[in-house]
Amino acid sequence: MAHPDRNTPLLDRVTAPVDLKGLTDPQLTALAAEVRDETIRTVAQTGGHLGSSLGVVELTVALHAVFDTPRDKLIWDVGHQCYPHKILTGRRDRMPTLRQAGGLSGFTKRSESEFDPFGAAHSSTSISAALGFAQGREMGMPVGDCIAVIGDGAITAGMAYEALNHAGHLKNRLFVILNDNDMSIAPPVGALQTHLNRLAEKGPFAALKAAAEGFEAHLPGPMRDGARRARAIVTGTPQGASLFEHVGFDYIGPIDGHDMGQLLATLRAVRTRATGPVLIHCVTVKGKGYAPAERADDRYHGVAKFDIATGAQVKAGSNAPSYTSVFGQRLTDEAARDPRIVAITAAMPGGTGLDIMARRFPARVYDVGIAEQHGVTFAAGLAAAGMRPFCAIYSSFLQRGYDQIVHDVALQNLPVRFAIDRAGLVGQDGATHAGAFDIAFLANLPNFTVMAAGDEADLCHMIATAAVHDSGPIAFRYPRGEGRGVEMPEIGQPLEIGKGRILREGADVALLSFGAHLSEVLAAADLLAAQGISATVADARFAKPLDTDLIVRLILDHPALVTIEQGSTGGFGALVLHHLAGAGLLELGRAIRTLTLPDRFIDQASPAQMYAWAGLSAADIARTVRHMLEGRRVAGSVHPA
Amino acid sequence: MAHPDRNTPLLDRVTAPVDLKGLTDPQLTALAAEVRDETIRTVAQTGGHLGSSLGVVELTVALHAVFDTPRDKLIWDVGHQCYPHKILTGRRDRMPTLRQAGGLSGFTKRSESEFDPFGAAHSSTSISAALGFAQGREMGMPVGDCIAVIGDGAITAGMAYEALNHAGHLKNRLFVILNDNDMSIAPPVGALQTHLNRLAEKGPFAALKAAAEGFEAHLPGPMRDGARRARAIVTGTPQGASLFEHVGFDYIGPIDGHDMGQLLATLRAVRTRATGPVLIHCVTVKGKGYAPAERADDRYHGVAKFDIATGAQVKAGSNAPSYTSVFGQRLTDEAARDPRIVAITAAMPGGTGLDIMARRFPARVYDVGIAEQHGVTFAAGLAAAGMRPFCAIYSSFLQRGYDQIVHDVALQNLPVRFAIDRAGLVGQDGATHAGAFDIAFLANLPNFTVMAAGDEADLCHMIATAAVHDSGPIAFRYPRGEGRGVEMPEIGQPLEIGKGRILREGADVALLSFGAHLSEVLAAADLLAAQGISATVADARFAKPLDTDLIVRLILDHPALVTIEQGSTGGFGALVLHHLAGAGLLELGRAIRTLTLPDRFIDQASPAQMYAWAGLSAADIARTVRHMLEGRRVAGSVHPA
Repeated sequence: MAHPDRNTPLLDRVTAPVDLKGLTDPQLTALAAEVRDETIRTVAQTGGHLGSSLGVVELTVALHAVFDTPRDKLIWDVGHQCYPHKILTGRRDRMPTLRQAGGLSGFTKRSESEFDPFGAAHSSTSISAALGFAQGREMGMPVGDCIAVIGDGAITAGMAYEALNHAGHLKNRLFVILNDNDMSIAPPVGALQTHLNRLAEKGPFAALKAAAEGFEAHLPGPMRDGARRARAIVTGTPQGASLFEHVGFDYIGPIDGHDMGQLLATLRAVRTRATGPVLIHCVTVKGKGYAPAERADDRYHGVAKFDIATGAQVKAGSNAPSYTSVFGQRLTDEAARDPRIVAITAAMPGGTGLDIMARRFPARVYDVGIAEQHGVTFAAGLAAAGMRPFCAIYSSFLQRGYDQIVHDVALQNLPVRFAIDRAGLVGQDGATHAGAFDIAFLANLPNFTVMAAGDEADLCHMIATAAVHDSGPIAFRYPRGEGRGVEMPEIGQPLEIGKGRILREGADVALLSFGAHLSEVLAAADLLAAQGISATVADARFAKPLDTDLIVRLILDHPALVTIEQGSTGGFGALVLHHLAGAGLLELGRAIRTLTLPDRFIDQASPAQMYAWAGLSAADIARTVRHMLEGRRVAGSVHPA
Repeated sequence: MAHPDRNTPLLDRVTAPVDLKGLTDPQLTALAAEVRDETIRTVAQTGGHLGSSLGVVELTVALHAVFDTPRDKLIWDVGHQCYPHKILTGRRDRMPTLRQAGGLSGFTKRSESEFDPFGAAHSSTSISAALGFAQGREMGMPVGDCIAVIGDGAITAGMAYEALNHAGHLKNRLFVILNDNDMSIAPPVGALQTHLNRLAEKGPFAALKAAAEGFEAHLPGPMRDGARRARAIVTGTPQGASLFEHVGFDYIGPIDGHDMGQLLATLRAVRTRATGPVLIHCVTVKGKGYAPAERADDRYHGVAKFDIATGAQVKAGSNAPSYTSVFGQRLTDEAARDPRIVAITAAMPGGTGLDIMARRFPARVYDVGIAEQHGVTFAAGLAAAGMRPFCAIYSSFLQRGYDQIVHDVALQNLPVRFAIDRAGLVGQDGATHAGAFDIAFLANLPNFTVMAAGDEADLCHMIATAAVHDSGPIAFRYPRGEGRGVEMPEIGQPLEIGKGRILREGADVALLSFGAHLSEVLAAADLLAAQGISATVADARFAKPLDTDLIVRLILDHPALVTIEQGSTGGFGALVLHHLAGAGLLELGRAIRTLTLPDRFIDQASPAQMYAWAGLSAADIARTVRHMLEGRRVAGSVHPA
């Protein structure tokens, strides 16, 4: 497909990876340059994960040139670096739809392409998945080579280590490419990073240290010598070993991930010779080849639309502060008053707002790396020692610390504070990042207190509530994005545990909201008022303990009750129903609906669009109420109790 | 306290660890022998985790002799090796109550003793917790030294690696003692084990390789020389490094964990000199000092009461097969018919019954080690490659793979089969091992099918159902222990998805059971019948998709409906209520109760006793029904709808 407006003569000839097979090595180098320009051009229009994609342009071209996808399974860890891969695998023309409603996902996705054998978005899953494919091949499935590409941040997660350890044990032929750019979203932390840096510093040529010595022989002469020399430098002595060799991998590297010659030679050598698991240590630069990205602190990890010439991003203005910044600022204020407050993040200091606290109290914010399991239990240890830890992890990532929440926090009733950002639907990052399940997976645990902020002012109060809540674990959730613009309190005031609030009194229906859908619920009440239906609107604030006085009052005083939450079934609405059942109040025969996220995953779009698809818009809520009240009038005669 | 019936003169003088401070080194050696005898004597009476406790007798004595607990925080990973620790920390007289109702926990437990600073039962949490305490100390909390004792199996879990990596980064003074007995429950797997074995083989003397070289100087002369010699042997050269050094720890070892002299010298040296994180590699023998244990394949990991002279265990006979053995046998049968079936266990081949399949199909059973996260995604990879993987993980341990279940399995709708043993309350292992939450954390996920076996015959059918269910993930849960003794089918038959069964027809109340509480529900129906109340008893079989036809029929045909499950709120009962609400059927005003596990953790006892405490005995169910029916007659006049 020709693109006369762009100078992409080679890329125009590529409709699938097989088209790379006919290109010479210099042409592949030139193709990479075209792919880089195309990637920049695309993300300038759509926004997205630019830095990581620019870091793997040459690697992507080289992998598709050397391996035979889709029979060979190429698995991108996290998947946000997949834009060059999408451009080369038949999705170039759809790139302008990236991360938009009905468009391409911002991550790899099985349902999108046969070239995405295993989708992702959360980190550190690729080696496990690749090993599963490799083992399927051993059992006769039609699978070729299996290649996992994983970053130096992602490989610090325990899950990746478990997979390396198992792969080293099984000894299948398997390729793990460590994309080492010394950056995850923030600069990675942890002692492993020091090890990697020590290895990487010794470059610049490929260092090979394979037990079989076989790879070196297949390299071109000059690289072979360089490799031998580098190996001695990297490992100290021939007997020395990298961490990866300790877990049973052949280790090759470091190689320059932007040098097509080194990439092709190394990949061709391992493809020809490997019999077991091989780790290829590939050093790259996040944001490579686009000066504004290379200069930026976060290397343009995730960007809005931007101007290509200047790199200036188009950020939408907002009058209300983001929930994230409210959390970061108000927790910092609490920490200033209370020296026992510390905070934990799993590699997301900026995303959680804890960078704000870290600037003022650097020694009291712990970035544990991509390590939610450890982060939760580390927080439990801090709590057991008498500190007041705030564990700030996005809803969907907190799933990775679930057993630790049950076993180390809830069972021991330790006062860990969970600050849960990105609760509910999150927009362009789609279903993988949706914070759908935290209410259900926390509020059904003994000892837990679970809150959700109806607005940004209540978030301040909930931070204050959590700070002084020493009697057990407590969690509060809040969404991505801006608040409602409500007036902010000077200082957050601890809330009475298990008490909600009534915002509006009505007679026909009670709308009981839990969390940030409150504004939509109030809008629904307005719609209903316009239709002559008067609604009470209450904000439950707590899913656990429930405000049972409030619930009983609502059910006694109204013919209909609707609960609304930005979460799955099994959460707030379920607990309200459990309570009503146990208290014998279902015998009243009131009309009740529990509005939750639906029983399906919802693809990316604007959050408002996603909630509309979920059936949770103000109009949907109002329609539900009208149907309930109509049905009630009808049902009385159809199903006499 | 004197025990004239026992020959324990030194132990009789120990009421707390402080009493060890006055003992000479030879006396400590003698004390260890007394503690070993006491441990064997205790477990012969109570049953329990004998092998692991016998392996750490000398280590326990040495740690309490050198460190100052409880100010120093001694954290036993998993905690099942804590019997010597309990004997020395004021709980000797209560040891006969071990793992029994109202007695001592079989694990460490914060609420039981100040000498248990952080309880456990699931593995691999100790380093994270110890690091939390250590960081609390840096922030001014009254905490001394922090010591984590972790096995060579437990340290392979990703969580332990995350903690090592963070500890190496923070560089706090911290002691991790690797208790390397080359056994977890089964022999451990993974490439790390090979690394440890390579280190361990080079013993027998202490090898120290601390950056500061400071530890060696503090060892007695002969050991110092041995250490220097051993270090060269272990690491090859002075520049070589163990895996632990790569993540920032000083590495000391291997030392003989049954040699009190080596233990005391090493612990005293590190206590005096350490400034950062230190890993002490301690080689022990599981079951040490009791010949029947040392001879046994599982080293008496978990035993029933036994005869001390012969080691013969008193196992209760049963007429019905255990659910575990039914699963192992029937899955093997399915695998014989279907070459695509493979199975995954996380270090529990015996506990899950997969050892049965592994004997016949060794290449089709994968033991991934203590690595539930990797295990789940590895299974997802196998499914994506076209295999039919059965992932067999206990309910409470499956919590550790929750994010992988959401992100890699449910989101991609991959047909991974989850065989969930130990669902519900499990008896002597208590609250930490209770399978309380799996219904709630699985059945609220899109794409999942969730079943529970009402009896062992249905388990056969559910295995067959899962085997052919290629359209998405499917899970089936079943309890610890023996079945009901029902007649077994020759071959399991795939069930119709989302269809339950009615076992008994009645008129006054519908009892809708989900899972293995079915026998208790039938008993409740008998009790009710004796009181003139006729109950329909149905087995839902599926929590997802619900048998909505059955539910509607039950609610229309009965004035009262009770759901019963061996799980928390937010699960089966909640989904029934959600459905009734959404369908407008709560307007009927029927009496409904959802019987679930209560909102608290339940300590160890017999499963029957635990369910009685939970309010789920047959008598409890019958009483609930009577109250509902009485309340219904009363409520009509009190709360007119």
